[in-house]
Amino acid sequence: MDKNSFFWKMADGRIPPPPCAKTLGLAFVEIDGERGTIETKFEARAEFLNPAGNVQGGFLAAMLDDTMGTALSATLDLAQFAPTVNLNVQFHRPARLGPLKGLGRVLLRGRETCHASAELWQSDKIVATATGTFVIRKMQGEP
Amino acid sequence: MDKNSFFWKMADGRIPPPPCAKTLGLAFVEIDGERGTIETKFEARAEFLNPAGNVQGGFLAAMLDDTMGTALSATLDLAQFAPTVNLNVQFHRPARLGPLKGLGRVLLRGRETCHASAELWQSDKIVATATGTFVIRKMQGEP
Repeated sequence: MDKNSFFWKMADGRIPPPPCAKTLGLAFVEIDGERGTIETKFEARAEFLNPAGNVQGGFLAAMLDDTMGTALSATLDLAQFAPTVNLNVQFHRPARLGPLKGLGRVLLRGRETCHASAELWQSDKIVATATGTFVIRKMQGEP
Repeated sequence: MDKNSFFWKMADGRIPPPPCAKTLGLAFVEIDGERGTIETKFEARAEFLNPAGNVQGGFLAAMLDDTMGTALSATLDLAQFAPTVNLNVQFHRPARLGPLKGLGRVLLRGRETCHASAELWQSDKIVATATGTFVIRKMQGEP
């Protein structure tokens, strides 16, 4: 964990969030970089809806990926990043327009391979869960 | 398969695509509702990019979900729809801004439970693959 890493600079507002985070309406409620846990918020927008008027599952997958990815990113050193190599999502019930809450947890923080899990909630109901596998890589050039 | 189903009306341009399809730039290259195969096109937009400048994995998951979902939707009867219950995505290499090609296939078209797989390509390189589990449900009210 390094408070000057890309993640912490973003979380502290020292640099702007990446485009994908803005698209999903990502915000942080609580981050614990020592324990590897995070609470996130998202906003399901009209552009994410499927023909049934629910959030298309892939956008929920994107929120779960971001929740696990940021829980892990909070533990990284300067100039490290952790791309997702596998994402497994279970969809429990439909999600609607509006706010969602994410809970992410790092299960394994290896030197190279990492595992994490996340839950996505809407109005006190769990809508989807996921596990992910991530690999730690070194950024090239300036972080 | 029913050519008056929601999917075929959309594929034929008789009704507009849902918001999530527009967001992902979904278009159809080839659809075979008998064999349950599909070729799709997507457009990765700047809003999908992560801090490394690549497409955030969740948006690739959304494209794979849409590719499997539409391959399956093409086989459905009127007033049926098929929500995703599980989505498992493998990320092979980074995807950049621009067009992507999806190849989807229905592996099992059960009366209730269905399995499908999809591949996502960019510039002749495979960027991600997925399998999905879907359940067939009856729409309430007018399709």
